[in-house]
Amino acid sequence: MTTTHSTTTIIDALETALPGHVDTDPALLDSMTVDRSGHRSPGTPLAVVNAATIEDVQAACRLASEFQVPLVTRGAGTGLAGGAIASPGEIVLSLTGMNRILEVSPENRLAVVEPGILNGALNRALAGHGLWWAPDPASKDISTVGGNIAMNAGGLLCAKYGVTREAVLALKVVLADGRLITVGHRTVKGVTGFDVCALMIGSEGTLGIIVEATLKLLPLVEGEVATVGGFFGSVEDAAAASSAVTAHGLVPSIMELMDGHTITAMERHAGTAVFGGAGAFLLVQCDGPDARATAERVAELAVAAGGRVEVTTDPVEANRLVGLRRNAFPALEAMGTMLVEDMAVPRDRMADAFAEIRRIEDKYDVVIPTTCHAGDGNLHPSFVYTGDEVPEKVWAAAGEMFHTALDLGGTLSGEHGIGLLKRTWLRDELGDDQYELQLGIKQLFDPLGILNPGKVFVPES
Amino acid sequence: MTTTHSTTTIIDALETALPGHVDTDPALLDSMTVDRSGHRSPGTPLAVVNAATIEDVQAACRLASEFQVPLVTRGAGTGLAGGAIASPGEIVLSLTGMNRILEVSPENRLAVVEPGILNGALNRALAGHGLWWAPDPASKDISTVGGNIAMNAGGLLCAKYGVTREAVLALKVVLADGRLITVGHRTVKGVTGFDVCALMIGSEGTLGIIVEATLKLLPLVEGEVATVGGFFGSVEDAAAASSAVTAHGLVPSIMELMDGHTITAMERHAGTAVFGGAGAFLLVQCDGPDARATAERVAELAVAAGGRVEVTTDPVEANRLVGLRRNAFPALEAMGTMLVEDMAVPRDRMADAFAEIRRIEDKYDVVIPTTCHAGDGNLHPSFVYTGDEVPEKVWAAAGEMFHTALDLGGTLSGEHGIGLLKRTWLRDELGDDQYELQLGIKQLFDPLGILNPGKVFVPES
Repeated sequence: MTTTHSTTTIIDALETALPGHVDTDPALLDSMTVDRSGHRSPGTPLAVVNAATIEDVQAACRLASEFQVPLVTRGAGTGLAGGAIASPGEIVLSLTGMNRILEVSPENRLAVVEPGILNGALNRALAGHGLWWAPDPASKDISTVGGNIAMNAGGLLCAKYGVTREAVLALKVVLADGRLITVGHRTVKGVTGFDVCALMIGSEGTLGIIVEATLKLLPLVEGEVATVGGFFGSVEDAAAASSAVTAHGLVPSIMELMDGHTITAMERHAGTAVFGGAGAFLLVQCDGPDARATAERVAELAVAAGGRVEVTTDPVEANRLVGLRRNAFPALEAMGTMLVEDMAVPRDRMADAFAEIRRIEDKYDVVIPTTCHAGDGNLHPSFVYTGDEVPEKVWAAAGEMFHTALDLGGTLSGEHGIGLLKRTWLRDELGDDQYELQLGIKQLFDPLGILNPGKVFVPES
Repeated sequence: MTTTHSTTTIIDALETALPGHVDTDPALLDSMTVDRSGHRSPGTPLAVVNAATIEDVQAACRLASEFQVPLVTRGAGTGLAGGAIASPGEIVLSLTGMNRILEVSPENRLAVVEPGILNGALNRALAGHGLWWAPDPASKDISTVGGNIAMNAGGLLCAKYGVTREAVLALKVVLADGRLITVGHRTVKGVTGFDVCALMIGSEGTLGIIVEATLKLLPLVEGEVATVGGFFGSVEDAAAASSAVTAHGLVPSIMELMDGHTITAMERHAGTAVFGGAGAFLLVQCDGPDARATAERVAELAVAAGGRVEVTTDPVEANRLVGLRRNAFPALEAMGTMLVEDMAVPRDRMADAFAEIRRIEDKYDVVIPTTCHAGDGNLHPSFVYTGDEVPEKVWAAAGEMFHTALDLGGTLSGEHGIGLLKRTWLRDELGDDQYELQLGIKQLFDPLGILNPGKVFVPES
């Protein structure tokens, strides 16, 4: 898709329609070419539109349609798959200024928010009402609710509290041509035609612009939290322990697994053997009225799988154990540039997934430290490299890893989405027939192809 | 859509392609013209195809496409909106013979099933694994899992355990032309393009045929169940009590409300004043490790709202209280033919919804006994009439009631779907722009318009 209008014409039209909302500062434009994936687009976009209202978004969409200019919607830019990266010739529609909480209703256990509010800021505000919004990507203090919805964000709590899709009741969406629709329901239940709300969640800015969200909230979980730290000789043993937890019907709030490479990096970074020679670490947290009893059963299963176990309900001790997981990425980032990958496998195939990752390490002569949301089988194999560009052999290893995930009955993205960086493999997972249907949906919602083009789907040549 | 082929040609082709699977017994064909809504189509369909395998479904779809004959997918026929009713010239694709459990995986907390298995039968089989599937429509002992998915079924437990959409991981779907696709993920998380799995859930047989489902299971809830029966002077007081429960962050498994008309019908049916003169009844059940504590807090709120309260953890006493709710529909059905309606409102608008229903009763001179899943604001206003056809004034009252639900921020279907009986009002809820998009999705998946035509959307003249 190319426009036949000059850059000046387009920017003039934007400034006329949206006075005071258009920014072409070179440093700002440059910051739009990256997200937190490490990837950089080949050059800067035309302009950034800082939307303050739904009407601003509608005006931007109408102009983008009129001039047939691509529109890249952007929140905080914390994505890990290049989904909000802007390129030359594109307009960035920034929603970070639309960050108000419009309503909190404890009676309906919902909140209505603008998309630019940060997840962490929202949850701090909700706590005063005894409520919270469950999606908790690692980026929650710096990522927006709109971005979380556009990616169907996951995080640490999903096995117990669900993914973002389960936490959204309704959305206001501006379509490519500027029309506004409301999808979903303010009610808990609703079956009126097709679930267009679910279709928007995880659509990565390619179907419409999410300009308001009605969020399903949960009451704050009361009582003490019980934490289990499990230190294992091998990642296989730790994976077996975590599989046993699920198979025994226990539902921890958090269950995180780290492999030996990650531990080595962390001990080097910390300068001390904080893991005491363990080859893998399993962190489990249990909440709710049966927190302590559940943690004790988890501990028994971990010991049975060969682990050395610490159990605590003391917040300070718990914080130390949680820190062993929280410091993983800073330690890895200290080694070089990090490409954090993201795949998910059925929970009984985690040990197989780790074995395959070791095989791929040997084949491609790379090291792949891997952390895992073990409660839901979501692995983050990470590649650490030096230099500006992801080395070829890293992409080759990553590609083989994604196919391995599919072979194990899994998916090539658990929670980061497809964006730019995984579009090459999407057809392999969906199959030709579903891929073509998805392209048809894209065409239906965005006939001019102006919404985040090149993301999710490989452009047709 | 009309076919140019003769009935004989089509039936011959079906029998050739699917020997032994085609049934044209008049009594069977007649039974396909109704569901449990009370509505009857104008005449019998061409034939019933009893599918035993995915290949059978594919063959039926290919033939239906070739001959451009409508295909109505049908499970147990327990729908309440006419969604699986067949009419002259149509083929019924019955999936009740595809009723096997293909896999139960406690390690992955999932089951893979064929669509024709009954919800109740599945849950009895899962109990042996310490697992259950949460969707629990009132019809669960007689309705199929495939039907539950096609309707996005609700039930009593949704405020705590979610609707069907939250309980389905992946689906195999046969498209209108006979191609087979797999949508969703076997994993807890997955973001690979658009959520076509969610799009299929609740699509009422209009987008594709669900031939296999991977279901997300929950561990059986351990411990005692605590039951609260609340007897109130008025439905407004009972609604206030139930709103207070939600607003105070309590999460019962069940919270059901019945109005005075329903109580009167039940006492007449039972021949005794089992409700002791109450004007409304609230039934609350709490499960999980904090069941008793939650029930006691619920009871306090019910008393504060003016209720007389019974609390019990004794199974026999609990069964008596639950029976007061369970016997509501049999008592109403004893009065005549019943049209059970279905609307949902935000939980803080339940008292307003009841007031509006009383206003509509007066305006149209009808009586509308109403039960309500009060945990999620889903009301079932019921019309009892005599004769074969729903009286005009009942439809007029129902139509005004649906618009009232929309005015209160609700929806015209909480869990029964649109089918034939509510399609007139669908555009009013969705708005023209979303309605046209939904028609576009229908056209994309079913370009010949052979899948359950006339359901959900009003046929264009």
